[in-house]
Formats: sequence, structure tokens, C-alpha cells
Amino acid sequence: MPRVVVDVMLKPEIADPQGQAIANALPNLGFTGVSSVRQGKRFELEVESIDEAQLQKLADTLLANPVIETYSIRGQA
Amino acid sequence: MPRVVVDVMLKPEIADPQGQAIANALPNLGFTGVSSVRQGKRFELEVESIDEAQLQKLADTLLANPVIETYSIRGQA
Repeated sequence: MPRVVVDVMLKPEIADPQGQAIANALPNLGFTGVSSVRQGKRFELEVESIDEAQLQKLADTLLANPVIETYSIRGQA
Repeated sequence: MPRVVVDVMLKPEIADPQGQAIANALPNLGFTGVSSVRQGKRFELEVESIDEAQLQKLADTLLANPVIETYSIRGQA
């Protein structure tokens, strides 16, 4: 069954306090060299039969909030 | 600055009620053909200088809970 991955990230201009908190904590935890962290969501869908347009609508209306988030859809073997 | 992506997903044997809820809701919302949904996290890191081992440790101790989650690290141009 084909798998589709939908990655949902906050738009670059939207503040990401969760990612920021991780980035700020890293030096104290001994990890240097990371300048920024952004956290998003990843959905793995097992699809039987769904066309590209439906998938797009699904991501746009259910998985992501297009006001503040962007998404990318890609197939995975 | 190179970007590193860390994908964190629940292990397959761990129940994912959030993904399950999405999968269950889809038919009522007019989306058929999706048999399973699993939700995970995606981290995008901007790194200046960090070696592979450090990155592995970071993912293993901070971004993922290896008891219930798996992660994959990959570079992105």
C-alpha cells in the first residue's frame, strides 16, 4: 500500500516558541553548533486510492492550518 | 547554513490515538481511500558545526523518546 508523507511546518514568519525553547536549551545541555530549531508535524498516511487533488484538500483543510502553516506532500515507497 | 531534518515517529507497535482519530474522521469528512494515519514530529535544525555523533545524541536524548519513538536524521540542502 503506498505511503504518503505530509510535512506541516509553521510559516517562517510565524514565531515558533516550542522550537525556540529547544534551541535555547541546547547549549546548557552540551550541544553547541545548532543555531535554530523549528518544530512541525509529520503525518504518514497509508493510502489505497486517493487522487492528488483530494490529498491536497485533505492536507489543506485537516492536517495543516494554511493561515499559519505550510505543508508539503510527498510519496514514499 | 546547512539544515538538518529529524523526523520522529511513534514505533509501529505503539498505538497512535491522535493519528487514529484523524483516520476515523476522514470518511465522515468526505475523504475515502486513506486506511491509516500516523502523526509524528518533524524538527528542522539550522546547524553551524555539529558532528554526526553529537546530532545522533541530540536526537536520541532530546528530540525523541527512544522507548516509544524512532527517529531519522537527514541533511537537507
